[in-house]
Formats: sequence, C-alpha cells, structure tokens
Amino acid sequence: MKKIGIIGGLGPLATVKFMELLEEDLKNTEENIELVVINDPTTPDRTSYILDNNKPNPLNKILEMVKKLEICDVSIITMPCNTASYFYKEIEAKTNIPFINIVSETVKYLKGKNIKSVGVLATEGTIKSGIYEELLKEYQINYLIPTNDEQKIISSIIYDGIKSGKPIDLNKFYQVINSLKEKGAECVVLGCTELSALRQIYNLEDEILVDAMKILADATIKYLSVK
Amino acid sequence: MKKIGIIGGLGPLATVKFMELLEEDLKNTEENIELVVINDPTTPDRTSYILDNNKPNPLNKILEMVKKLEICDVSIITMPCNTASYFYKEIEAKTNIPFINIVSETVKYLKGKNIKSVGVLATEGTIKSGIYEELLKEYQINYLIPTNDEQKIISSIIYDGIKSGKPIDLNKFYQVINSLKEKGAECVVLGCTELSALRQIYNLEDEILVDAMKILADATIKYLSVK
Repeated sequence: MKKIGIIGGLGPLATVKFMELLEEDLKNTEENIELVVINDPTTPDRTSYILDNNKPNPLNKILEMVKKLEICDVSIITMPCNTASYFYKEIEAKTNIPFINIVSETVKYLKGKNIKSVGVLATEGTIKSGIYEELLKEYQINYLIPTNDEQKIISSIIYDGIKSGKPIDLNKFYQVINSLKEKGAECVVLGCTELSALRQIYNLEDEILVDAMKILADATIKYLSVK
Repeated sequence: MKKIGIIGGLGPLATVKFMELLEEDLKNTEENIELVVINDPTTPDRTSYILDNNKPNPLNKILEMVKKLEICDVSIITMPCNTASYFYKEIEAKTNIPFINIVSETVKYLKGKNIKSVGVLATEGTIKSGIYEELLKEYQINYLIPTNDEQKIISSIIYDGIKSGKPIDLNKFYQVINSLKEKGAECVVLGCTELSALRQIYNLEDEILVDAMKILADATIKYLSVK
C-alpha cells in the first residue's frame, strides 16, 4: 500500500486541516492510501530563524521527523508549511523518498493557469527568504506582497489569530487582499498553511484566493495516483 | 518528549476530529507532546466482523499499526474507535505500551458523574459485542439502547451519512435521543467516533450528549500530564 508521510506540527492545526483536504481527495480516488503523521510541536519557529539566524534552527527537528517517516516506510513525504520549504534542499539531500514541495507545486499551478501577476500572503520568514519570489521570477510571474503595515495585519492573523486561537478580523484580511488586487494581482496565494486553515474554518470560497495547502494535497494524491 | 500514538483510520474523518480535540486540550497544557498517527484505511470494518466472524478480521491491521507506533517510540497508544475496543485485550497483550480504552474511560466518566441510567448510540457491532453493556453493568449503571428501527437510523447516520459524506437528518438523530430520554436515560453516550465527528461538525452542545471521543482525548492528555 502507498503511504503518505506528513511532517506535521508546523503548526498543529494546519496539519489537521491538511489531513482533511487529503481525506476529501482520497474519497475520490480508487486507491487505498495510508497516512503517517508525525506532529512535533517543539520544532522551533521557522520565521524566527529566517529573520535571525542566532535563533534556534528548526532543521534538525524536521530531519528527525523525516527519519521517523522513513522507518514507517512512506512512499512520499509532504510538509504542510510554506516557510519550512526554505529548507527543502536540505530535506531532499537527507532522504531518497520523494518530497513534494508546497511552494514549487503552487507556482507550477499558477503557471498552468497562465497567471501573470500574483499577490502572496505569507509569514515574514517566507517573504524574507524569497522562496516564492525566486520561483515566480523564474516562471516570469509578477510577484506582489503586502506593504509593511499590511504585513503586520497578516502576521497578526497568523500568530495571534490562528496559532493562538484569538478572534480574527476578516475585514482587515480582505483589506490586504483588495490592496494587492488594486496593484494588479489576478489572484492571491494563501502562502502560509495557517491562512489555509483560516480559509477552511471560515469557508472562504472567493475565486481570487489560491490555497497553497489545497494545491499541495491535490499534488500529493496525484503524484501517488500516477505512480 | 512524551508521544501519543494514534491508531487511526477507523474512520479517517473521526481520526482527524480526534486530533482536533487533542490539539484543543494541548493548548491548555504546559507540556509539549508529540502526536504520531498511523491512518490505515484498509482496516476491515469492525462491525461487519463482529456480526459475522467469516468476514475479514480487522485485528491484524490494528496490530500492524501498533507495531509502527512502537517503532516510533510512543509513550501511550490510543484508538479513536469504540467498536474496535472489542479487541482491546488482544491489543494490550501484544504491547507493553499503555493503551487508553475509549469504552472504559467513558464508563468511568459516567460513574464519576454519578449517572444511574444511560443511553448508548453506537454501531451494531458495538451493541452486539456488549462492550458498553458489560462494563456499565459492572458499575451498576442502567444500559439503554435504541429499538431496532431506531438503530437503523443511527447506523445509517454513521455509514451513509458521516462515513460516506451524505446529508444527515438531525431531526431523526434527536428523535432517537429523545426516545432514550423518555425511557429514563439521564444522558446519551455518543459511542461511535463518527457520531463524535458529527457533534463537532454540527456544533452540538446539548448537555445530554456525552462524547466518548472527547472523554478519550481528555483522558489521554491527563494520563500523560500526571506521569
């Protein structure tokens, strides 16, 4: 039986919401696929490390989870966290199991839809690391991000809202989306899995939203189905 | 770090909903606890086997998941499925890792609340196996179950509704609950994790409902917190 290995806990809620997306997709496939999930909540914050390399490095914890998934003999490894994709080369170097990268799957999806200009909502770590920026450039897609003040709104929704479970002001969220739209964004990527969780929790179905975690779920199932 | 091992996939949606309950509890604990989840969707249906022993036996698949959780070095094993608790002695015999049993935790909870008479909503497998009945008897709690026609409603909600994702008639669900209440049930146990998932999905907060899966989540965290 094919097995999907999930590097989880980045964050824990996003992992559960990712599993729900996988389960939905699995209902529509003939195949039986096992899920193996390692959900380690002690993985240091990815953004903190990217913004300040003196902070604890999450890579070792991520690689420990990879090792456990290898022991469980998974067919594929996937990680529902955009910011941690910063480490994807290190992850790929340490395992022979195929690794599905949320950022590259999302950018390929945008290219497939012939998008020319996209807004990206993400953590400061993802923005600073340039992981979306570089790949979008390679595919000649224009990259738009929030202003500093707008980024504060998004970071607060991610950290104080979803991660801490406090109420979220959806008006402010859409204010940032509309601002990116006015600058020419044809669509806006939810490039943080906490924002993908927010979409699921609030049933946001706006066409402008491109959910990176949903793309990762679809790509993971598709990869296993064609093998 | 303490690790909770979850025998999952019985069913897959219930597993995800169980993880959500654990995550909620973990938010209120000081401790960092890792989750390891094995979600094997090919485990044969527990009720089919209990009703007809010529049908495929799920035990081997359950024990395979136990082995994988052992390899991942979990501190405790938990299984969000009431019907599969039928096999708990065989599971405990095969591993030295403590196993938290949803049925016995729920009955202990009822005893703690000084309940004298309880209705149980469950699969036909759980009812026929007598796992709730025997333990409730031991604790001198009166055991009430739906009539045959009412059981058909509950089985249909579990199999055609939650497991297959078809719409659920909540009026019929409450009709069965009210019937048990009229017979003297002080509370009604949601003794199938698909019904616990239903409670979460529809935000059912009635005081009469006792959610076995929520009790399992609380007991699991409590067990680890006091060790």
